[in-house]
Amino acid sequence: MREIAVIGIGQTPIGELWDQGLRDLGAESLRAAAADAGIERPDALFVSNMLATRLSDQAHLGALLADYAGWRGIEATTVEAACASGGAAFQAALRAVASGMIEVAAVCGVEKMTEATTGTVTSALATASDADYEVSQGASFVALNALVMQRYMYEYNVPHEAFAGFSINAHCNAVNNPNAMYRKAITEQQYKRAPMISDPINLYDSSPICDGSASLILAPLEMARELGKPLIVIRASASATDSLSLADRRTLLGLDAIKLSADKAYAQAKIKPQDIQVFEAHDAFSIMAALSLEGCGFAEAGKGTHLALDGAISPTGRIPISTMGGLKGRGHPVGATGAYELVDLVTQLRGEAGTNQVQGATLGMAQNIGGTAATVVTHILERIG
Amino acid sequence: MREIAVIGIGQTPIGELWDQGLRDLGAESLRAAAADAGIERPDALFVSNMLATRLSDQAHLGALLADYAGWRGIEATTVEAACASGGAAFQAALRAVASGMIEVAAVCGVEKMTEATTGTVTSALATASDADYEVSQGASFVALNALVMQRYMYEYNVPHEAFAGFSINAHCNAVNNPNAMYRKAITEQQYKRAPMISDPINLYDSSPICDGSASLILAPLEMARELGKPLIVIRASASATDSLSLADRRTLLGLDAIKLSADKAYAQAKIKPQDIQVFEAHDAFSIMAALSLEGCGFAEAGKGTHLALDGAISPTGRIPISTMGGLKGRGHPVGATGAYELVDLVTQLRGEAGTNQVQGATLGMAQNIGGTAATVVTHILERIG
Repeated sequence: MREIAVIGIGQTPIGELWDQGLRDLGAESLRAAAADAGIERPDALFVSNMLATRLSDQAHLGALLADYAGWRGIEATTVEAACASGGAAFQAALRAVASGMIEVAAVCGVEKMTEATTGTVTSALATASDADYEVSQGASFVALNALVMQRYMYEYNVPHEAFAGFSINAHCNAVNNPNAMYRKAITEQQYKRAPMISDPINLYDSSPICDGSASLILAPLEMARELGKPLIVIRASASATDSLSLADRRTLLGLDAIKLSADKAYAQAKIKPQDIQVFEAHDAFSIMAALSLEGCGFAEAGKGTHLALDGAISPTGRIPISTMGGLKGRGHPVGATGAYELVDLVTQLRGEAGTNQVQGATLGMAQNIGGTAATVVTHILERIG
Repeated sequence: MREIAVIGIGQTPIGELWDQGLRDLGAESLRAAAADAGIERPDALFVSNMLATRLSDQAHLGALLADYAGWRGIEATTVEAACASGGAAFQAALRAVASGMIEVAAVCGVEKMTEATTGTVTSALATASDADYEVSQGASFVALNALVMQRYMYEYNVPHEAFAGFSINAHCNAVNNPNAMYRKAITEQQYKRAPMISDPINLYDSSPICDGSASLILAPLEMARELGKPLIVIRASASATDSLSLADRRTLLGLDAIKLSADKAYAQAKIKPQDIQVFEAHDAFSIMAALSLEGCGFAEAGKGTHLALDGAISPTGRIPISTMGGLKGRGHPVGATGAYELVDLVTQLRGEAGTNQVQGATLGMAQNIGGTAATVVTHILERIG
C-alpha cells in the first residue's frame, strides 16, 4: 500500500449558524481545504453526516456538496456511523487513495442541528442507539451515557467532581481556538453548580448541539512532496464495533470497541500508547473522555479521571487531549466531529496550534466514537517532514 | 491494484415482509452470502441504506448488522447515495480490499419501507432530491421523474405506450425469480389501462415500495481460486455526480452522470458498450431505463424505447436488462437495490439464472442511479473461470 498524506484542511467556526444551510457550510470548509492544499478539484468526495435526512429533509449530500463546492461530476458518497461518521469517511477516503483508484480525495464532515427543536434533535440523536431495545424504552442518548457514568462512579468509587478536569481543560483550550463554540474558561465551582441534564451528566459533562463543517484533502505522499506541503502521513486507520445496545455488552463499562480499535491502530503504526504525543479524544460526555483514555492504554481502568486532575491532559501535560477545545468546548456537530478531530490533530502536527501548541508533537492520534462506543474509529498521524 | 472477485451472494425475497425488521433482513442476506462464499466472518461490513433513520428511527446500521450477523467487533459503516447507495457501498468495499487493508469485505444492502404510511415514504424518498429548491416547491420524487418523462416524450415525439416494453420485460422475467415481488406477467393492454400516478408515469412505469436485503462478499482473486469459487472479477467501478436539482442541469434530458459513469467504466475495463452481454439497468421508472440505455451507448438519444419494442432487452436479445425482474418486477427497496442488481448480475455470470439465463454471458454491467441521476455508479464484472 502506498503512503497517504493529509495535504489540506479547512473548517467553519462551530456555533448556531443561522445564516448558513448544510450546503453552504459544507462548501465553505471544502473550498478552504482545497485552497489550503493548493488543488483545484479532488477526484472523489466522502461526506460524513448523521442527521440531515431527519433535521433538514436532505439525503444525498455527496452529490449536493460536490456540486456546491464547484466540482459537479466528481464521484461522491456519504458515510455514516452515527457520531463516528467523520472518522469512517476519512477511512473510506484513505482506502480509495490507497487502492490507487483515486488520486486526490476530499473528506467533508457537516452537520446542521440548530434549526430543529431540542426534542427533535434528541429523537434524531437517539437513532445512534438501538431503536427496538433501548429507544423504545424511552432512553435518550444522554440517558444511556448517564447509565454508563453512574455505573463507573459506583464501580470505581469515583465522585462526580473528579470529572471536572475534562470540562475545565476543554473550555480552557477552546478560548484560544477562533473556530470554537464556547470561548470561555470555566471553574470547578461552575462545574459543580451546573444544572443536571440526566443524572449524573450535568451541563458541563455534555457537549453542545451546534452546526459546523470540517474538511480534509488526502493524496499520495509523493504529491504532498511535490506540492511542498508539510508531510503528515496516515500511520494507522482502525475501526471496531460492538453491540448497539448497552444491555448486550459484557459489562456496562467494558467498551471493548475502544480498546479493539486502539490496539489495531497501535499494531498498524508499530507503536505503543506512550509514543502518542497528542490525542484528540471523543469527549462528547466527560465519561467518554475517561473511558477513551483507559481503553487506549493511557490510564488503568477506573483511573482515567486522575489524568484530568493532575494536569496530564493539558497541552503541556504528558497526554494532551481536546487541545483545540474538544467536543465539549469546540463543539460537537455530530456527523462532522470526526473530521474536526482530524483537522485539530493536523493543526497540532503542523505546529500551527498557537497558544495551545503541544511543543514538538510529531505523532498523534484521533479517536471518533459512535453511539455508546458501538463504532470506534482510530487514526494515527505522523509528521515526517 | 490487485484483482478482486465476488465470492458470495445472498438475498431475501422482496415484498411486504411484516415478520422481519431491518436487522433480521440484513442478517439473513449476510449469513446467506457468507455461507455461499464459505467464509466464517468478513473483516469489514459496508451497509447500504437510505431511509432507516426516517422510517425505522435507526441510524448506525453498520455496527447493528455486524452484531446481528454474528460478527460483533468487525469494522462496519453505512454508505449512502440515495437510491445509488448499494453501488456506492460495493465500491467502498472494493477499494477496502484493493487497498490491501481488508482481506474479505461484506456488502449488505437493506431497506424496510412498508411499515410506514405511503405519505411518510413519499416524504422520505424526496430527500434524494434538492430539499431547498425542489421538494420545498411540492415536488415528490415521482413528480420529478414525470417531468423528465414528459419532456422526453415531447422532445423525441415518443408516445407513452412506447415505454410498455420495459414493464412487460421486467414482469415477464420476474415470474421466474423466486425472490421477486411481482411474479406475474403483464400485457400491453394492462399497461395502457394502468392508473396514472404522476402524469405520464403510471402504475406500471413505477417500481414498488417494498422491503428486502441483498449481500455480497468480496475478496482477492487468489482467495476465490483457493476456495474453488466461480471467478467473477470486478473489471470496473466508476461513479459520477450531477446537480441534485433538475433545474440546474444543462437540459432536462441531459443526464450527464449516466454517460460519465458508464464511459469511465468502459475505459477502466477497456471495452466498448457492444461487448456487454447482460445489463442490470436501474429501471426505477421506465423513463430511467430508456435514459440509462441511451447514456450507456446502447441506443441513440431518443431511441431507447426501440430496444424495448423489438425484444432486444429480453434475455435472448442483444442487450438483456432487468433479467431477474429489475426494479419494476423484482422490486426496489431503495438502499438495497444496487446490491440486488449486482447479485442478479453475478447470478447471470455464474450461469445460475435458470429460465432467464443469458446464454454464455461472461461480461456484464450493473448501473445504480440515485435521485434523478445525481449519482450514478456503474460496475462491470467478468467471469474468467
